[in-house]
Amino acid sequence: MRKSKKERQNLLKETILETPFITDEELAEKFQVSIQTIRLDRLELSIPELRERIKNVAEKKLDDEVKSLHIEEVIGEIIDLQLDESAISILEIKKEHVFSRNQIARGHHIFAQANSLAVAVIDDELALTAKANIRFTRQVKENERVVAKAKVLKKEVEKGRTLVEVNSFVGSELVFSGEFDMYRSNLIQGRDS
Amino acid sequence: MRKSKKERQNLLKETILETPFITDEELAEKFQVSIQTIRLDRLELSIPELRERIKNVAEKKLDDEVKSLHIEEVIGEIIDLQLDESAISILEIKKEHVFSRNQIARGHHIFAQANSLAVAVIDDELALTAKANIRFTRQVKENERVVAKAKVLKKEVEKGRTLVEVNSFVGSELVFSGEFDMYRSNLIQGRDS
Repeated sequence: MRKSKKERQNLLKETILETPFITDEELAEKFQVSIQTIRLDRLELSIPELRERIKNVAEKKLDDEVKSLHIEEVIGEIIDLQLDESAISILEIKKEHVFSRNQIARGHHIFAQANSLAVAVIDDELALTAKANIRFTRQVKENERVVAKAKVLKKEVEKGRTLVEVNSFVGSELVFSGEFDMYRSNLIQGRDS
Repeated sequence: MRKSKKERQNLLKETILETPFITDEELAEKFQVSIQTIRLDRLELSIPELRERIKNVAEKKLDDEVKSLHIEEVIGEIIDLQLDESAISILEIKKEHVFSRNQIARGHHIFAQANSLAVAVIDDELALTAKANIRFTRQVKENERVVAKAKVLKKEVEKGRTLVEVNSFVGSELVFSGEFDMYRSNLIQGRDS
């Protein structure tokens, strides 16, 4: 059943607050209205378009700075980072990321985004992946936007290990999840010396 | 204890037969002699240099042809392929594959080589990764050559699943191992229809 305009606009506001990187197309589908209606709703509610929302987040100075690698080595764009706690990045799936014959994103790009985020979240000069347990839960297509969210689950600095969970979404759909068991510099120095 | 020349040359022949992609440097280290000695041994034994050996293998028409993706989409160079059985590829680790600050290969490139080999070995038009369990067992440095070997462990065509194991080596050292649980076209068609 269709919702009233007021109902829809309230839900819209909530939805965008919870998942700020949702597209107008995804919102239109969610609320079973046209994209045009969503645009008008946003105008009335003074909610900027997606590109603006991303820029706003990106321009807020990140609370922390990536330590374990150069920021330009991160695959995707980091938009939130709390060292040793959590991080979020966005990757736009373009032509170069998909299999030419079916436009499905190649697994290793989705993996690279998640893995480099797991490296970036570590508050140490050196972080390397030891093991990972990953799952591709839904195909990602060209022009979709993957939002990866990393969360540090367990930090054992004295052991030189940190467990990072990364879940990646297109809209509200989970497309990838992985647990990354990371070495951090303590152990590495121990191994090299 | 050093081996006699005859002993060493016999072992050298055996070693190259078993691990054809071993470098002269690795052989020199293995037999505790200079690289020059290894080169002379190879000359006397008429064993071509590594680059030639790789070319020979690559030029032998592969028994099978990649089906699930375009050959140029494979990360690394495929040098052996038996569809639904096994495959081997080689990836030279270059500057663009390593972290700029420590020249250690980034995990996602090692993963991409292994994952695309797991896709390539599947004898079906469509193959996608569902899950993977991976382990990075040794750091790989710039200028090292990674040889990935894929083996199909379990093929359940009716279920649309295939389990592929990939082990990657630098010389005789294991640097990566992974088990890839692959969807193949049967299931995909089932899901899309």
